[in-house]
Amino acid sequence: MASPVVPARGMRDVLPADKARRDAVLGTIRDTYRRFGFAEIETPAVEPLTRLRSNQGGENESMLFEILRRGLPADEAVLPADAADLALRYDLTVPLTRFYASHAAALPTVFRSLQTGPVWRAERPQKGRYRQFTQVDIDIIGEPGMLAEVDLLVATLSAFADLGMGEDVTLLVNDRRVLTDLLTTAGVAPEHGGEVLVALDKLAKIGPEGVAAEITGKGLADAGAVERLLATTAALRGQSGPDDAPLRDGRIDVAGAGEVDLRDLPAIVHAVRTLLPWARVEFDATLVRGMGYYTGPIFEVAHAGSGGSVAGGGRYDGVVGKWLGRDVPAAGFSIGFERIVDLVQTPAPDRRRVALLYGEGTEPVALLQLRRELQDDGADVTLVRAPRKVSGKLFEQLLADGFTHSVEGRPGNPQTGTLRALTPSA
Amino acid sequence: MASPVVPARGMRDVLPADKARRDAVLGTIRDTYRRFGFAEIETPAVEPLTRLRSNQGGENESMLFEILRRGLPADEAVLPADAADLALRYDLTVPLTRFYASHAAALPTVFRSLQTGPVWRAERPQKGRYRQFTQVDIDIIGEPGMLAEVDLLVATLSAFADLGMGEDVTLLVNDRRVLTDLLTTAGVAPEHGGEVLVALDKLAKIGPEGVAAEITGKGLADAGAVERLLATTAALRGQSGPDDAPLRDGRIDVAGAGEVDLRDLPAIVHAVRTLLPWARVEFDATLVRGMGYYTGPIFEVAHAGSGGSVAGGGRYDGVVGKWLGRDVPAAGFSIGFERIVDLVQTPAPDRRRVALLYGEGTEPVALLQLRRELQDDGADVTLVRAPRKVSGKLFEQLLADGFTHSVEGRPGNPQTGTLRALTPSA
Repeated sequence: MASPVVPARGMRDVLPADKARRDAVLGTIRDTYRRFGFAEIETPAVEPLTRLRSNQGGENESMLFEILRRGLPADEAVLPADAADLALRYDLTVPLTRFYASHAAALPTVFRSLQTGPVWRAERPQKGRYRQFTQVDIDIIGEPGMLAEVDLLVATLSAFADLGMGEDVTLLVNDRRVLTDLLTTAGVAPEHGGEVLVALDKLAKIGPEGVAAEITGKGLADAGAVERLLATTAALRGQSGPDDAPLRDGRIDVAGAGEVDLRDLPAIVHAVRTLLPWARVEFDATLVRGMGYYTGPIFEVAHAGSGGSVAGGGRYDGVVGKWLGRDVPAAGFSIGFERIVDLVQTPAPDRRRVALLYGEGTEPVALLQLRRELQDDGADVTLVRAPRKVSGKLFEQLLADGFTHSVEGRPGNPQTGTLRALTPSA
Repeated sequence: MASPVVPARGMRDVLPADKARRDAVLGTIRDTYRRFGFAEIETPAVEPLTRLRSNQGGENESMLFEILRRGLPADEAVLPADAADLALRYDLTVPLTRFYASHAAALPTVFRSLQTGPVWRAERPQKGRYRQFTQVDIDIIGEPGMLAEVDLLVATLSAFADLGMGEDVTLLVNDRRVLTDLLTTAGVAPEHGGEVLVALDKLAKIGPEGVAAEITGKGLADAGAVERLLATTAALRGQSGPDDAPLRDGRIDVAGAGEVDLRDLPAIVHAVRTLLPWARVEFDATLVRGMGYYTGPIFEVAHAGSGGSVAGGGRYDGVVGKWLGRDVPAAGFSIGFERIVDLVQTPAPDRRRVALLYGEGTEPVALLQLRRELQDDGADVTLVRAPRKVSGKLFEQLLADGFTHSVEGRPGNPQTGTLRALTPSA
């Protein structure tokens, strides 16, 4: 028997009903972001390997699909490390920063970018995770002030609202500099800060005991520092809401060891709450975000139904400058498209979708003239090959396939040309 | 100096103005095809190398971007031929036939597919040709009758009409079986048929003498056969139009050596002309189409302004069955998106695009509330950082960037909040 014909390992096909749903969700997000003045760009799927291996991508850099160098002599063996010169992008941020460095002279002083498209990661295949998936990113390059953060947050919360999910999401904000000050004040040595944050990031998953065990087990900080850190986060828990003390005071108390200033966070949260009174916005001192390149405010959108984050981002002032040769401030927000596409209610078809039935030997011209009449009435019309005696089962299948009506297109039947509404009982 | 930051060789970025234009053109084509009942699908960019190396792609198979096999030992050299197991797709037809073989049980008896997306070919980079480019394909799988061809032709000509190009294009049709019969009747041996067709395909480019020299020079046919072949095509030239004899008679005369039946071509052309009276449709006995897999009618859309074909397709009954294990009729039509996107008139912006000016220290809440008012009036609003004293040059730049209006967003200016229409003289 022939081997089964399937997509490449970890990849998937998108069938028509899913494709329509994905395009509707993506279309809503793009429309919202365009109203907010983000300009859509496109970058190639492939980037030079050197740019994708620049330590900007954390563990994603170990999941690259590398592309074989062209023109290698066929009879000479080559080491894997020398075999490739390009790779598929693992996110849209590296290509964006490369894009900005390539085209800065042609772009406005502050560039508001929208980019959507596939990215590839050779993750271990598992249910619901694919090696090619879609990302949706907005970024503001060139604006140093908190206006950038407020703009990203308001636009993204508005996109969730336009998807009908505004009430279901919570925006969490923090700041990398606040985290650094918190660790220092609690007594963590700067050289262990990164690893302590990795442990702290797991607080919701493994609890305070787990976090304490990981930090002391690795010798990253002494028991006093760990205790101060966890006492601070425990004291903050449950304080969120419009009247939470840290945002009102603009600082947090680190278990008696000192205070940490919240910098722009109170102003950012106040602006978002004022502009979008329905939005749930909270300061979360345990929000870390994985990527090492963040330099200021960081944010995440949590969704009750998905048990995790559905969008994330922050300020990354150092990254663009690296390739451009001068410092450029930047901040971005990325929506986890694959996570939200299943959470959105499927909208009802906005147009008539008509199945026009035909069979062996149906005369094309009369059939297609009938189709044009149906199209002129505003319907999408699909030709559907069917037996002359149409069964109830076929009508059920047409309904399941998203059709709203059927029409007999063969001459000689009293029903020919008459629209028949498809209903579950039909 | 650092090396310039550019996209990978032969690849390109798409900047906002171009991206908007490309999306508008693609959106129009997709809307048209949806009205004609084609169901959009998506396949991964990557396919197993074995499927992309199945002799279906002609010379495209030598232009593959191959992907390094994962998990190769880092210290063992490997021959290039053993280094890859996946590759980027070079067209959308191979993935479609693989898709159909994977999902046939879940698809309707006759499946009308629409697929758009990037494909990759490692062609020698040259002006206007890129190694990643977009294709737009429709295909009908499972319909053996000429209804499939008529449907593909009417839908595609309608797409060109919806793009405002209906009057500029000419649809050329032929049939691979007609070509075979023509060669046989003229006296070409079957084993040389393929190579003779390759020569005949160059008739417009190198003229009848060039074609004759290529055929006789390679010893593919004797002088008599070549003379009969070229006399037949010469006699047919200029006969096209609504009253052309071959379509009326349903046959062509091969320079006295016999007649060749035109099979379904007269009925297909008659149907298209009846359904779309404005369309220019011609029988072209020298139309060959490069791909080896065509088995019946073939077609091409010629555009006066581009000096070449802007769409092409035909029936390929043998291909889908190869992977599915049973015969499945199929026909498709592919639009050369990159060729037409520059031929379409850019539509005027259909909404207000407003530049909202701000500067250092502008208070976010008031600025973004003003933005919301402008959005509520139906505008797309972009925040634009600008010096306090706005120059005429900036207004010109905003106009060039596609904005229709500007608004001063800083308090304290008498113009604050007032829409200013941008005009070339402004």
